[in-house]
Amino acid sequence: MNLPLGYAYAATYAGIRAVERDDLALIVTGLPAAAAAVFTQNRVQAAPVRLCKRNLKLSRSLVGAILVNAGNANCATRTGDAVALSTSKAVAKLLKLPPVQVLPASTGVIGVELEAAKITRSLPKLIEGLGTERFDDVARAIMTTDLVPKTAFAEVKMRRGTVRVAGMTKGSGMIQPNMATTLGFVLTDAVIPPAALRAMIKRGVERSYNRISVDGDTSTNDTLVLLANGASGVRPDPKELAKVEEAITGVMQSLAKAIAKDGEGASKLVTIDVSGAGNNEAAAKLARAIANSPLVKTAIAGSDPNWGRILSAAGNAGVAFDPRKTDIFMQGIAVCKAGLAAPFPEAELKKKLDAAECEIRFAIRGKGKGEARFWTCDFTEGYIRINASYRT
Amino acid sequence: MNLPLGYAYAATYAGIRAVERDDLALIVTGLPAAAAAVFTQNRVQAAPVRLCKRNLKLSRSLVGAILVNAGNANCATRTGDAVALSTSKAVAKLLKLPPVQVLPASTGVIGVELEAAKITRSLPKLIEGLGTERFDDVARAIMTTDLVPKTAFAEVKMRRGTVRVAGMTKGSGMIQPNMATTLGFVLTDAVIPPAALRAMIKRGVERSYNRISVDGDTSTNDTLVLLANGASGVRPDPKELAKVEEAITGVMQSLAKAIAKDGEGASKLVTIDVSGAGNNEAAAKLARAIANSPLVKTAIAGSDPNWGRILSAAGNAGVAFDPRKTDIFMQGIAVCKAGLAAPFPEAELKKKLDAAECEIRFAIRGKGKGEARFWTCDFTEGYIRINASYRT
Repeated sequence: MNLPLGYAYAATYAGIRAVERDDLALIVTGLPAAAAAVFTQNRVQAAPVRLCKRNLKLSRSLVGAILVNAGNANCATRTGDAVALSTSKAVAKLLKLPPVQVLPASTGVIGVELEAAKITRSLPKLIEGLGTERFDDVARAIMTTDLVPKTAFAEVKMRRGTVRVAGMTKGSGMIQPNMATTLGFVLTDAVIPPAALRAMIKRGVERSYNRISVDGDTSTNDTLVLLANGASGVRPDPKELAKVEEAITGVMQSLAKAIAKDGEGASKLVTIDVSGAGNNEAAAKLARAIANSPLVKTAIAGSDPNWGRILSAAGNAGVAFDPRKTDIFMQGIAVCKAGLAAPFPEAELKKKLDAAECEIRFAIRGKGKGEARFWTCDFTEGYIRINASYRT
Repeated sequence: MNLPLGYAYAATYAGIRAVERDDLALIVTGLPAAAAAVFTQNRVQAAPVRLCKRNLKLSRSLVGAILVNAGNANCATRTGDAVALSTSKAVAKLLKLPPVQVLPASTGVIGVELEAAKITRSLPKLIEGLGTERFDDVARAIMTTDLVPKTAFAEVKMRRGTVRVAGMTKGSGMIQPNMATTLGFVLTDAVIPPAALRAMIKRGVERSYNRISVDGDTSTNDTLVLLANGASGVRPDPKELAKVEEAITGVMQSLAKAIAKDGEGASKLVTIDVSGAGNNEAAAKLARAIANSPLVKTAIAGSDPNWGRILSAAGNAGVAFDPRKTDIFMQGIAVCKAGLAAPFPEAELKKKLDAAECEIRFAIRGKGKGEARFWTCDFTEGYIRINASYRT
């Protein structure tokens, strides 16, 4: 799979993390890109989130570069706004861009001052290292407790040529999507105007980032940016645009699933399908309640087909449904029919639940057309180990 | 502390649990007691919950006996309603009570048929064993994953005599209060009419059972019953009634705190105080969001003063507040002032957080008068171990 044209990437170690591992990265587009973004809905928002919103407004959704650091969230700090502003201005100066065309993004610990000097003194080296093939280096630099870098790619062939999509994301804990979760950057070289991009990202997150959960916590820094720099020279016609949107959404779904799969301490990716709810929103609420139940997630960790917990978790979703019309399937095997225990081959199902990917289907009988797909992970002792001593 | 007059208790092993430990218990009052109760808000409600509601209505809030079993929730089962009805009718027949004066309660695994015969054939022995001092035996019989029985007592001296309050509860997991959580039985020998009792239990749960959380899950069987059999012969006057209510609420708070402290895998009881919110409801939402955050709870487990997680969790409560006007204290030490890191003695605080009881204070500056106190526990690897293989 080829990377989109017209982007360059760089990563370096700026001394923000305690361990020497790249923690500062840059994504640059030669042509200014049309941009759309979604941000955390947390009432507490990090300085870079606030500056991104402001810059997108002032630049009329044009972006030249994204500056991202790991190891420090630049949130709830005295100097947060000044650091976000001065570092993105420094990037603009070196790249000869209008300052409002630089988007900052940060991830890491909250409440610890981020030293601007660590970033600004690393910028010349960072920029010198820019390369069109260093995509994976950036994907690795933005990792925190992630075990693996997360990238996804797509190509769409059209009448006038091919456009490419590449996405990267990070995230493993503090994952409960609400508009967007964690950091994510999706790049394409198609020609797409900002208004269309905004519609795409809005629809896309509802089928990807807003459908995953690791621990029900939403971070203060969640940022997902979608850039279209038009470097392919290909301007999709309306019909082709739908194909490009499908590719972009597919990349976002792959990235979101990769986050759920790499959930802190997770050993399994869990896909939850709800059908028959009153509407899609109700279905999503039911799916989220199941995905967020520690009791469901620990049962999956133990390969325990404890469907009573699934039914009970759904009962707490705040959505009306008749348990007596509800069927539950695990790994395709009916464990609950019409709200009651269904006879199932216990040993066989337990073995199937040992797989790396588990499926829960929650089907309400009747005329309801609401459905939703959600991804989460199991809940293991590893999550506790990772989070009991993250800060110190 | 003396037990309330006029009640008798019994417990036995009826073969409902796999291990031989009392799993069937009875609370009987000689004089029919005025009763008030609150039940789970889960959309999925166990058969005994439905029958309790019906019986309280038909009996005009009079109760003669409570029949309770552990080891099986009698929920989402084909025969659930019939089992709840036939077993409570059998108790009524043996005790010569109107059937509607018997309240059934069950706790344990969901979705497994409960055999009525196991209960009915144990009833003669159970009733034979009734004793006025066997309160603790019942408290032990209703335990599931609880490590300790949970009881609380109070006495109120009044002009015309003394009234006594005794409460027992169970619960350790699937704990997120919403009206009532788990099973709880609070008994008094004061003379209190049903309408006053109902008002008391409603106000009381808002300061006790609805202010605790272990894992954010609400069970299908949550039942809290308050009985007043009047056996003391003491009818409090309006002023004295307030004192009795205080004693009853105190007993409910002790029981609720005991549940949080005995949370599955918990090593610490965590008290969360929120002040300065717009109103008490907003304060409770903030406190609950902090109490339910796995990231806050794992940090407490690791004695990590990670106040950024507390601020971020509050930001997800869906309540408007200004982080820049927020102070956070842990064990009485300021860790965040006006939304920013406060310098604190790290080593000293970490040591203080090793204590069995931890306090988080979340104080919003300004004119808001809303406040709430909430109890939860830390989140350890033990929770996962207990829940990954509960059913099997």
